[in-house]
Amino acid sequence: MCELHGETLAYDTAGQTLVYLDQTRLPGETLVKEIFRPEEVVRALRRLEIRGAPAIGVAAAIALSVLCARSEKSDMGGFLREFRENCDALESARPTAVNLSWAVRRMKNIADEHAGGSVAELKVALQKEALKLHAEDVEACRKIGEYGAPLLQGCRAVLTHCNAGRLAAVKYGTALAPVYAAKERGHDLKVYACETRPLLQGARLTCYELVSAGIDTTLICDDTASYVMKNGLVGAVLVGCDRVAANGDTANKVGTSALAILAEHYGIPFYVCAPSSSFDKAARTGADIPIELRSGDELTELWYQKRMAPEGVGTLNPAFDVTDGELITAFVTEKGVVTPRASAPQ
Amino acid sequence: MCELHGETLAYDTAGQTLVYLDQTRLPGETLVKEIFRPEEVVRALRRLEIRGAPAIGVAAAIALSVLCARSEKSDMGGFLREFRENCDALESARPTAVNLSWAVRRMKNIADEHAGGSVAELKVALQKEALKLHAEDVEACRKIGEYGAPLLQGCRAVLTHCNAGRLAAVKYGTALAPVYAAKERGHDLKVYACETRPLLQGARLTCYELVSAGIDTTLICDDTASYVMKNGLVGAVLVGCDRVAANGDTANKVGTSALAILAEHYGIPFYVCAPSSSFDKAARTGADIPIELRSGDELTELWYQKRMAPEGVGTLNPAFDVTDGELITAFVTEKGVVTPRASAPQ
Repeated sequence: MCELHGETLAYDTAGQTLVYLDQTRLPGETLVKEIFRPEEVVRALRRLEIRGAPAIGVAAAIALSVLCARSEKSDMGGFLREFRENCDALESARPTAVNLSWAVRRMKNIADEHAGGSVAELKVALQKEALKLHAEDVEACRKIGEYGAPLLQGCRAVLTHCNAGRLAAVKYGTALAPVYAAKERGHDLKVYACETRPLLQGARLTCYELVSAGIDTTLICDDTASYVMKNGLVGAVLVGCDRVAANGDTANKVGTSALAILAEHYGIPFYVCAPSSSFDKAARTGADIPIELRSGDELTELWYQKRMAPEGVGTLNPAFDVTDGELITAFVTEKGVVTPRASAPQ
Repeated sequence: MCELHGETLAYDTAGQTLVYLDQTRLPGETLVKEIFRPEEVVRALRRLEIRGAPAIGVAAAIALSVLCARSEKSDMGGFLREFRENCDALESARPTAVNLSWAVRRMKNIADEHAGGSVAELKVALQKEALKLHAEDVEACRKIGEYGAPLLQGCRAVLTHCNAGRLAAVKYGTALAPVYAAKERGHDLKVYACETRPLLQGARLTCYELVSAGIDTTLICDDTASYVMKNGLVGAVLVGCDRVAANGDTANKVGTSALAILAEHYGIPFYVCAPSSSFDKAARTGADIPIELRSGDELTELWYQKRMAPEGVGTLNPAFDVTDGELITAFVTEKGVVTPRASAPQ
C-alpha cells in the first residue's frame, strides 16, 4: 500500500487503488484503507469514511481513474458506458457538496476529449487528470491559508465548526489553512472547535488534527458558541463550505447558519474558506442547493452505541444548512479574498 | 416506598424520605429512588438525577425536612447548627438555578420563626413548609400552562430546548406546560425538541415525556434549530430558565441565548416560562448570575462511554448561558404574562 505522507487520501497508481484515512475511526484509531470497487467507494463516501467537500471531490476523481484502469472493457463504447455508470454512482453518494459533481465533470470532460482515441490512452489521461486534481487541491488549500492568515492579525483565537481542516481536503484544509499559515508565520492562534453533532467531526477530527499540529485547542458544545462569542473569546469565525450559490448563499454543515447569525449579532467577522471548485454558478441562491437529509438514527442512537431517545419520536436530520450570503464577511479562496457582493472567483 | 403518581418527586412523610425518578436513567429505564442522607441528596443534585430549576428547589425543601425529621439533636442550638450545615451543603450543589437557594431560604425562614419553640414543633413546621412548596410548584406550573396556551393560538409547532417539562418540576413543567394546556383545550401542537448537548436532556427527557403524553415530537440536533426556524417550521420558541435578573437577563441551559438571537433574526416569538421563584431581584443583570462550569469529560467522553476527542484537547463546558432580556418576547409566570421591560412578577 502506498503511504499517505501526512495527506488524507492518495492515489496508488502502482496498485490502482484509492488510499485514505478512515475518518470514522478517529481520534481513537488511525486506520488507512485502500479500495478499488465502485460499491466500496460509494460506501466510504456515504459513511463519511471519506468526507469534507474538497476531499470527496479528489476521492471521486481518483476512484474514477482507478475504476477505469481496472476496467476490462476494450471497446470505447462499453468502456464509456461503464465509466458513466460509475460517474452516476459516485455523484449520487452525497448531494450537497458541489466539489463531487465538479470533479466528476472534470473527469467526464477528459473522457469526452479522448473518446475518439484508444481506451488505453483514455486511461492514461484520466489518471493524469486525477493526479492533477489531487495536486491542485493541495495548492489551492495552501493559497487559502496564505490569503486567510492576514485577516486574522490581531486575533488571539478563532471559532470553527465541523472539520474543514487537512482531514477535509488532501492537505492544509480550507477553514484551518489560515490557522496553519499563521502558525508558520509565528502567529499562534487558539482555536475553539464546535463538537458538531451528530457525528462529532469537530471533536473527533478538528481537535485531532489541531492538537497533533501543536495548536492550542478548546472543544465546546455547539450550544456554547454563543457563550464564547458573548464573552469575547474569539476574534473571528472560520468555516469551510460544501457549495456557494451565485448570490453568496452558502451550504455548509448544519449549524453554520446559526454561527453566522450569532457572529453578526456579536460583531465578529465570519469567513468562509473554500476553493473555487465549491462555487456553483448554476445555483442562483441557496434554495437551489440540495440539502442531504440523513438517518435519524444519528440522533436517536448515540454514535450507534446506545439509544438516547424514546421509541416513537420523530427526527429531522439535515446534514447541512444554508447561510445567507449577506451574513458572510468574506470568502477566502485560492484566488484571493472576495466578498459575497462581488462575483464568485473567476 | 410512596408512589410518584405521575409526579417527578415526592415527600414520603411516613418513611421520611425524598422519593424521585432518577433522570439519568431515562429514557431507557424508569428508576425510582428514595434517599434520606445529606450526601445522597447532594450527589443526586450534582449528577442531575434530580434536575430542572423548579424540581431542585422542591427537592431541597423536602430533603431539608427529611434531614431534620431524622435528626437526633434534641436541643434547639444543636438542631439549628445541623440544619444550617445541611442548608449550606444543598445550596452549594448547583450554583445557577436560584430556585435552590430560594427554597432553602424559605425553609430557613421557618426555622427562624420557630427558633423560640421546641425542636418537635419546628420539625412539624418544616415538613408543612416542604409540602407547601411541593403543592405550590404543581399549582404554579398549572397556571403557567393556562397563561401560556393562549399565546400559542395559531401556532402549529413550537421549538424547545433542554427539558423544562414535567420532569423539570413536580408536574406539568414550565416551558411545556402551555403545550400540555393547549392539548387539554383541543389544540394539538407539534414540538421540535433540541437534543441539548452534552447531557441530552432534550433527547432523553423532553422527547420521553412528550411522546408519553401523545404529543407529536421531532428530535433535532441543537445545530438544526436555525434550519427549523428558517424553513418556517415553528411559530414560537418556549424555554424554561434557571434565574432571571432584575433587568430581564435570563440564565438557562447553554444554547438558549443562541436560540433567542436566532428567533429574533427570523422574527419568531421567544417565551421564557418560569415560576416567580426563578426571578432574582438581587441579581441586577445577567453578569450577576453565577454560571456553573461542568467537567469537560461531558464533552470528551460520549455519555461516559467512549472517548470522542483526542488527549491534550482543552474543554470549556458551561452548563448555562445568559440571554439578554431584550431578546425575550415575554415571560410566562404563574402570575401572568410579563415583558422584560416590566418589573418581575410581584
